Amino acid sequence: MSKKSAPKGAKKPDSRREYREKELYKMRHSCEHVLTQAMLKLWPKIKMAMGPATEDGFYFDFDPSPAGSGQALKISEADFPRIEAEMAKIVKDNLPIRKKILTLAEGRKLFKDNAYKQEWLDAIKQKKQKPTVYWTGKEFVDLCAGPHVKSTGEIGAFKLLSIAGAYWHGSEKNKMLTRIYGTCFATQKKLEAYILQQQEAEKRDHRKLGKNLDLFVFADIVGKGLPMLTPKGTVIRKELEKFVLEEETKRGYQHVITPHLAKVELYEKSGHYPYYKDIMYPAMQIDEEKLILRPMTCPHHFMLYKSRPRSYKELPVRFAEIASQFRYEKSGELSGLTRVRLFCLADAHIMCAKEQAKDEIKNVLNLIDYANSVFGLKKGINYRYRLSLGDRKDAKKYYKDDEAWNVAENILRQVLKEIKAPFYEAKGEAAFYGPKIDIQMKKVNGQEETAFTVQYDFVMPKRFELAYTDKEGKEKEVVVIHRSSIGCFERTMAFLIEFYAGAFPVWLSPVQVWVIPVSQKHFNYSKKITKSLSDLGIRAEARNEDDTLGKKIRTGELQKIPYLLIVGDRELKAKTVAVRQRKKGDLGAMKLDDFISKIKKEINQKK
Amino acid sequence: MSKKSAPKGAKKPDSRREYREKELYKMRHSCEHVLTQAMLKLWPKIKMAMGPATEDGFYFDFDPSPAGSGQALKISEADFPRIEAEMAKIVKDNLPIRKKILTLAEGRKLFKDNAYKQEWLDAIKQKKQKPTVYWTGKEFVDLCAGPHVKSTGEIGAFKLLSIAGAYWHGSEKNKMLTRIYGTCFATQKKLEAYILQQQEAEKRDHRKLGKNLDLFVFADIVGKGLPMLTPKGTVIRKELEKFVLEEETKRGYQHVITPHLAKVELYEKSGHYPYYKDIMYPAMQIDEEKLILRPMTCPHHFMLYKSRPRSYKELPVRFAEIASQFRYEKSGELSGLTRVRLFCLADAHIMCAKEQAKDEIKNVLNLIDYANSVFGLKKGINYRYRLSLGDRKDAKKYYKDDEAWNVAENILRQVLKEIKAPFYEAKGEAAFYGPKIDIQMKKVNGQEETAFTVQYDFVMPKRFELAYTDKEGKEKEVVVIHRSSIGCFERTMAFLIEFYAGAFPVWLSPVQVWVIPVSQKHFNYSKKITKSLSDLGIRAEARNEDDTLGKKIRTGELQKIPYLLIVGDRELKAKTVAVRQRKKGDLGAMKLDDFISKIKKEINQKK
Repeated sequence: MSKKSAPKGAKKPDSRREYREKELYKMRHSCEHVLTQAMLKLWPKIKMAMGPATEDGFYFDFDPSPAGSGQALKISEADFPRIEAEMAKIVKDNLPIRKKILTLAEGRKLFKDNAYKQEWLDAIKQKKQKPTVYWTGKEFVDLCAGPHVKSTGEIGAFKLLSIAGAYWHGSEKNKMLTRIYGTCFATQKKLEAYILQQQEAEKRDHRKLGKNLDLFVFADIVGKGLPMLTPKGTVIRKELEKFVLEEETKRGYQHVITPHLAKVELYEKSGHYPYYKDIMYPAMQIDEEKLILRPMTCPHHFMLYKSRPRSYKELPVRFAEIASQFRYEKSGELSGLTRVRLFCLADAHIMCAKEQAKDEIKNVLNLIDYANSVFGLKKGINYRYRLSLGDRKDAKKYYKDDEAWNVAENILRQVLKEIKAPFYEAKGEAAFYGPKIDIQMKKVNGQEETAFTVQYDFVMPKRFELAYTDKEGKEKEVVVIHRSSIGCFERTMAFLIEFYAGAFPVWLSPVQVWVIPVSQKHFNYSKKITKSLSDLGIRAEARNEDDTLGKKIRTGELQKIPYLLIVGDRELKAKTVAVRQRKKGDLGAMKLDDFISKIKKEINQKK
Repeated sequence: MSKKSAPKGAKKPDSRREYREKELYKMRHSCEHVLTQAMLKLWPKIKMAMGPATEDGFYFDFDPSPAGSGQALKISEADFPRIEAEMAKIVKDNLPIRKKILTLAEGRKLFKDNAYKQEWLDAIKQKKQKPTVYWTGKEFVDLCAGPHVKSTGEIGAFKLLSIAGAYWHGSEKNKMLTRIYGTCFATQKKLEAYILQQQEAEKRDHRKLGKNLDLFVFADIVGKGLPMLTPKGTVIRKELEKFVLEEETKRGYQHVITPHLAKVELYEKSGHYPYYKDIMYPAMQIDEEKLILRPMTCPHHFMLYKSRPRSYKELPVRFAEIASQFRYEKSGELSGLTRVRLFCLADAHIMCAKEQAKDEIKNVLNLIDYANSVFGLKKGINYRYRLSLGDRKDAKKYYKDDEAWNVAENILRQVLKEIKAPFYEAKGEAAFYGPKIDIQMKKVNGQEETAFTVQYDFVMPKRFELAYTDKEGKEKEVVVIHRSSIGCFERTMAFLIEFYAGAFPVWLSPVQVWVIPVSQKHFNYSKKITKSLSDLGIRAEARNEDDTLGKKIRTGELQKIPYLLIVGDRELKAKTVAVRQRKKGDLGAMKLDDFISKIKKEINQKK
């Protein structure tokens, strides 16, 4: 695509979105400058270090105790109202924000009292660039690449959110600075909606719910980013696995089991090694072999495919595996089940003839849509598609074969159009071996993340000589489709915990039924009921706590148990159970068999 | 136990077995001397290096081209008749075999021409022992610790088996010697039975069947001892997993999922590290953490148990996991699925009150017996029990607490007696943290190996402070029972492949039904039948090869498919299938529904 083509801004809905996002980004960046200006007014001794706009707002890092300034300043969230008032004044004054390009010497002079800015200038010098600064009125100036809004009056509704420590350049070896987080929106209404969403997201935080509902735990002595699933968490995980295995089997996948590690050579052959080595675990020398924990499954599946000759009659060969994979994530980026160092992917690789690729990709998207619908996720609302394209000019990052890229990208684009998928295109987001379709999931905090991908690969078949014999007896190269159905189990679990706010549908609930005796004398009856349910594979527990009935029901509700069966004199006599359904409340007394029919139906329908 | 107590030989049936085995061992060792003597007579230039008796017979390593001897001698299996004839002469001569203790100088002199023997003498010198030699008549002498039979006439029926290369001291750095394998039994009948068994075992070798039936493969670029399960192998594995998970759930186990690695600290805390570090993979430094792939699951389960307080009401807590584990096995010891470097164990740890331990162990043995019976294994025939005891005197190998050892060993002994299990006792076979019951499985080659274990552990609860609150609110220590139900999946699969000779029962068969059309025009009908079966979860394939019907049936039989359904004109017209059952042959025509009922019943009953 030529550099001279029209700016994408005004063309398509997605470009309008991009435009809006760009404007918001400018506003937030300017708001961060206003924050800095206000801070310097209130505490002239602090030294500003850095401050960017982010996807959610902005932050500002400063040094509260620069060398020679005496005791560190104590600034806390209690100071936010003062700071916000000071910021409001600057916004009200509608000061112009103006860019200026300096010489390096001018920059050095302007920030002569700020060691942090001098370091930025060193970096600018090394890149042989010229420093740019932004002036807010005549009072405040910061070294900044921009862009910004034209004047402070253009800044919408803002709010400071929190304060925390942060190392200079994110490294423990440097000084600990102070960071203030804030956000900014075009209107007060949007700001309030965002804050409400964040409060809701906090309540649904899977780390918090995971602890309250006893789903997973960590231990220092085990290691960072290595969660252990409790019995309850394991029930959810195993139900998800079962669902995936059954659905894949129905759709013609063959399951395989391959080792969690291999010789480094395997990743050199596949070409992954240079791209992945920084996020791989260190290699282990065993006798003459250099083994490494795998960061992906594809090369193993290719070796299995190659283990015997393949005929066109067998194609497509669809190898699926619930595969453990290991990636080194920085400790600062680890978070609950969302970012871990060992994860398990519902992975698969489809080896097919070129002319089968389109249908196979459609089938994969159909499987993903189906799985999402089972979870209650709606296309266009909870998720959308991203067509991730390569960059023909970046030969270092992308395998060089323009023709193959064109073919592959067109197939993916066509599929998305044919299935009428809501999608947008993103350049430079492809895998090194081909373009992909990313399923972008909206989290409860409003952020979007790639949940699953479908990749079209024309590189690996060459590297591994993945071939088949066609009808005429000729050897032909396959196309490989890399895909996940429900993604990485850890991250999907984290997502679902938050999506359901811990109130899992019955089929996924670790405990589906509590049987609660009204008093101690009904405990035996409750145990009998529990056994009848357990024998049918329904996950039931007889509760025998020394609490009031009301307390027991409340605990059950807090634990988000789908069904509470209360049994007392009346139920014992009538051989019934009094049913309380989560969210719906009291359903009255039922014959046990009727309740069993009801819950079994819901479980089978994955409700 | 005092050193002066009567020799165990004459006491119990199992001791009689030990006695017999000892006699056989002596005979085999003497037979190896006879082999050496015969070889030296035929080829005086060779140098004898070493030769022990083994569980199956004996072998003899020699140097066919000692330095300065000129060209290497060519000795092959074609020479076996000559060697055996020479050996027979020595046996017939009934030469006396006599032990003599030498001084080191006498030894040096006696073997002055043999560098290998001089090396043995160096080792003897270092241990400050005196060399012993055994004379066979007056012609032959070897450096040997014995014991031997009294004269060559006591040697029973023998046979040389094979010839191979072997490094001196098993190290690639040393010279390659030649090894001759042979065996020897008390009677010709026993020898013949052994040879027949070995031939049968060879046919059933899981490595051979694994290849023929396409169950698993290896690849050099993946790594040694790291099998990849094909779709067919994976079906068997997943069926086994499902069986274990369901059976354990029924029996009150809770499943958990813990990471395949942890910080080295975890294994230092458990005390495993010094015992296991040589068979563990190298540690990996990640930031400030030293991570290592786990060689066992227990410490992870203990950390999960400790993740919250536990009450007596919850006990026993039974954590089960299908757990990946990593152990460094020497490359020379790797073999198919039997010895691998990454395996998956049907593992569990039961945390219970001391007074619950006995019942829990009984329950575990019951589960193991049940699983074995499902596989068709018979107690006392296919497997027996070994009570593996500690050694009070070996404080380095066994945790020092005589009282605790006594209690634990008595509990295990009592359980075995109460369930009337066929068992024998073995000192020094315990885990370092407590005694165990080993389930000793007889393989098709006649060798016995430990398939599963149940361990009583009183050490880990102390090291990890594994406690619960009792009825009175007091904190008490639990007892841990380590157990496996069906052992390591890889090894169990290898065992079952050999046990069934590849003809898996229907529930385990990767493909349960082949639908074979008589001719091309019946292919559509066969596909319809196949779909009806697949929709019900029956693993069926429609065969469409260009072969004669007879050839197709033979292929199906070679692939050990449990049911072949033949469909031709007659079946198409009558809406039936002609059923051929593996081993039973033609069952005649059946309505499809009747066949479905039959096979579903067999699958459900795990037949």
